Amino acid sequence: MNPKQLVGEEAAKYVKNGMVIGLGTGSTAFFAIQKIGELVKNGLQIKGVPTSKATEELAKSLNIPLLAIEDVKRIDVTIDGADEFDPQKNLIKGGGAALLREKIIASVTDFYVIIADAAKGSEVLGSFAVPVEITPFAKEITMAQLKALGCQPVLRVKDGQAVVTDNQNYIADCKFERIDEPAKLAAKMNAIPGVVENGIFAGMANVVISEDGNGGLLSL
Amino acid sequence: MNPKQLVGEEAAKYVKNGMVIGLGTGSTAFFAIQKIGELVKNGLQIKGVPTSKATEELAKSLNIPLLAIEDVKRIDVTIDGADEFDPQKNLIKGGGAALLREKIIASVTDFYVIIADAAKGSEVLGSFAVPVEITPFAKEITMAQLKALGCQPVLRVKDGQAVVTDNQNYIADCKFERIDEPAKLAAKMNAIPGVVENGIFAGMANVVISEDGNGGLLSL
Repeated sequence: MNPKQLVGEEAAKYVKNGMVIGLGTGSTAFFAIQKIGELVKNGLQIKGVPTSKATEELAKSLNIPLLAIEDVKRIDVTIDGADEFDPQKNLIKGGGAALLREKIIASVTDFYVIIADAAKGSEVLGSFAVPVEITPFAKEITMAQLKALGCQPVLRVKDGQAVVTDNQNYIADCKFERIDEPAKLAAKMNAIPGVVENGIFAGMANVVISEDGNGGLLSL
Repeated sequence: MNPKQLVGEEAAKYVKNGMVIGLGTGSTAFFAIQKIGELVKNGLQIKGVPTSKATEELAKSLNIPLLAIEDVKRIDVTIDGADEFDPQKNLIKGGGAALLREKIIASVTDFYVIIADAAKGSEVLGSFAVPVEITPFAKEITMAQLKALGCQPVLRVKDGQAVVTDNQNYIADCKFERIDEPAKLAAKMNAIPGVVENGIFAGMANVVISEDGNGGLLSL
């Protein structure tokens, strides 16, 4: 079995009958959702909350019943990927520009399962630039205020145009040398008026599942 | 002289030659801007940064030179109104739905002058519902998370439609009984993923000017 499938199917073990499940995005989450679809086909009753349009379509194709976001109060288990994780299970997310939706879903989740390549693990966060969703208005001021926190913010651009999020905002990718206090840094970023949300998910994950490179599983 | 004019003109005394000036919005700020226009006509050299479209038009009509927001690095003095203030000069702002723009401008201001009716002063903030700018996506979750902080959030509606800010977001007006620790509450609000920014301006104002109801001035 390919390592992503192994990890994805391991994560699917957290899904139990009657639960509301947050469905993540990405190549490893894909296998978890495939597995959940199989379980649903065999009679498992759950409702899914997709973290992206792509996942929504995948879930529909597998006949996984979905819950509209306006009807979500709590989510039992969410299974999602991460761009980087540390031994304390702090994460950096947002490489796909969907950090706001992902963080909203994580914030109402009781048990948050992260699945990721072992290569995404770091002793200290900072290898991956922190994606920060910022308002287009006064983006220069906001980026200067982010820079003052000790990073080099770069406006995310595609085909010569600023990338626009689902919420009509921009993304500033903020590369730090190392992030020793992720929760404090996240609070400082959110205190900047033009920052909508940041890609540091501190103290949110309950378990991080990855593989050991030899066909085995690693769990934090 | 009418009390608003008295207060507005007093605030204009902080404006000196060569400064970059944040120009606030509202009926008292109107008189400050009128006075600044008069000073500019008499040779004062400043550049203005408007906090709203209405103020931009007023400033243009008075021939006050303006700076585009993308060219603003620091602002020497900003003169703006407030919906409520306390003796520590903490403020609630955003009754006009422009709190994000106002807070961005305040955040790069060296000396922040607030002008307001004496009636807007409170021993403890909480008479005015705190306007909170939230993303339309998952607004129900965000409002539930705001409610958990101890308020009654109400989505701001006009003519049967949710009010949309300049940044394509919504406003939730959050009425608290009393706000004993404004800075802490502001940080808690900003930690909610769907909150873009909140209308608590804690520790930002350098002076609050109002009138005493008998033709005199009151300053904090």
